[in-house]
Amino acid sequence: MTSRRVVIALGGNAMTGPDGSATPGAQRDALREASAHIADVVASGVEVVLTHGNGPQVGNLLVKNELAAHVVPPVPLDWCVAQTQATIAFTLTDELDSALIARGLPQRTAGLVTRTLIDVEDPGFREPSKPVGRFLPRDEAERFVSLGQVWEDRGEKGWRRVVASPEPRSVVDSPAIHALAAAGFVVVCAGGGGIPVADDGHDGSALRGVEAVIDKDLTAAILAREVDADTLVIATDVAHVMVDFGTPSARPLGRVTAAELREHAAAGQFARGSMGPKVEAALRFVESGGQRAVITSLEHIADAVQGDDAGTVLTA
Amino acid sequence: MTSRRVVIALGGNAMTGPDGSATPGAQRDALREASAHIADVVASGVEVVLTHGNGPQVGNLLVKNELAAHVVPPVPLDWCVAQTQATIAFTLTDELDSALIARGLPQRTAGLVTRTLIDVEDPGFREPSKPVGRFLPRDEAERFVSLGQVWEDRGEKGWRRVVASPEPRSVVDSPAIHALAAAGFVVVCAGGGGIPVADDGHDGSALRGVEAVIDKDLTAAILAREVDADTLVIATDVAHVMVDFGTPSARPLGRVTAAELREHAAAGQFARGSMGPKVEAALRFVESGGQRAVITSLEHIADAVQGDDAGTVLTA
Repeated sequence: MTSRRVVIALGGNAMTGPDGSATPGAQRDALREASAHIADVVASGVEVVLTHGNGPQVGNLLVKNELAAHVVPPVPLDWCVAQTQATIAFTLTDELDSALIARGLPQRTAGLVTRTLIDVEDPGFREPSKPVGRFLPRDEAERFVSLGQVWEDRGEKGWRRVVASPEPRSVVDSPAIHALAAAGFVVVCAGGGGIPVADDGHDGSALRGVEAVIDKDLTAAILAREVDADTLVIATDVAHVMVDFGTPSARPLGRVTAAELREHAAAGQFARGSMGPKVEAALRFVESGGQRAVITSLEHIADAVQGDDAGTVLTA
Repeated sequence: MTSRRVVIALGGNAMTGPDGSATPGAQRDALREASAHIADVVASGVEVVLTHGNGPQVGNLLVKNELAAHVVPPVPLDWCVAQTQATIAFTLTDELDSALIARGLPQRTAGLVTRTLIDVEDPGFREPSKPVGRFLPRDEAERFVSLGQVWEDRGEKGWRRVVASPEPRSVVDSPAIHALAAAGFVVVCAGGGGIPVADDGHDGSALRGVEAVIDKDLTAAILAREVDADTLVIATDVAHVMVDFGTPSARPLGRVTAAELREHAAAGQFARGSMGPKVEAALRFVESGGQRAVITSLEHIADAVQGDDAGTVLTA
């Protein structure tokens, strides 16, 4: 019997404190709560591949880079992404193993350092637009601009660094993820959208890290296709995708077709930095042949994997 | 046909510049060179599991912790170890994949975030002795002592932090390492001896990171037993273990039995912070049932895996 396989993309709320804090304690508490819901999914008998965001965690590393630059050479963004993969994976493997053991389940969790291929010709590199790290006053920001970074004036809050967010092309380590899932492991992988790598050899023979960050939901859509998942679950802090949000006609979307959701997206229903990429990821998964994508809150992921009654459920 | 399996422990020289620098560029250059030798081992038809040190890399992270502490809460040592696992694994997977492709080999590399179980009752916690991070003047060191850290007066160079280096008990993620190796991947794992975790539940149900560092060679010895490797290769910067080092009767050890090597060790032949743990790891592997351990330089690892004519070769 072949098991069903699902990819679950965890949002920031699964790994940061209520105030967005990414301290070790806040991260552990949040992941402990998330692990209970994930273990419920595993208990339902499906193979689970987990991926996750890393925004606040990368932000902290960039501040350290900056404040220690006179003693230790700063490391590039791809290194920062890698670092957050390991700290989040190790906390999550601890907490999820604990939840699996508490349920008497035989599966254990494995955390994989994961690279995602991007194209150096991606338009994202010509116009960096993804804000990262903390706000700084203009004079401090200008010091980093002189080092080649791109910073934008964000008004009252100050200046903020913007970086390229290229399209993910494929997850380099998908075969290893598949092997671990097939061997019965819950796999934590492709954190922060994966470590961005370019391939100067065009055959995998000359991979190198690139200064960029990749949208974790867009990577999740590719990952879900590459590991043959039937369902992509995007876990966030709301139970449903809303249309006409903030107006008297606001309503949650339940079951919806790709065509309908594309229409809502084209009408500008979803915010660029938050629900937009989640909707786009769900659409791409289904439009490229995936069976079903669900956007819902952590509390509903077990129901979302088992039926069509939880969250916003997208089918072809 | 079952393949032979070997564990190779890479020393600092495989991932830092000639001056010990752990900048991204120096790390990549060193790992590129190491990858050529590792790919030769893979080409000889054995399954390869790689582990590695992380001293200079952790040192850099501790400096960042320290200099950014007024803005970003410092992360504990277990987090630092995790961070170095990911940055080293990602560089090594890139470079080794490249070397494997160049040789027309089908294997690819996978980097696993790896936890190593320690005992919180380990005597190492009562008398921290492993130096980490940079030297500081007394007054600066005292600020960290007041925060609960242990620092030692190291004379002219200044003060240095010392941390616990408990015995590794088992590699929590060995089953995942085995699964990846069995699926044909070269596995990069247990970097820096593994992320130290204690188990408050005594059944794997309550793992949590612990502020400590684990000797990477001692972990390699346990890992090699747990993944059923026939050979443990400890790669360092010298071709052989020497006895009577620095005296007129200095001589390299070739083939040697565990009993002979134990005698040399008991006679204080090997320096505590450098060759000592390597010899101890080799001894433990063979004394606990492992077939063969070799200590040699990177250039000789392929020969060391294939025969008894390279390096210091230890058998029962």
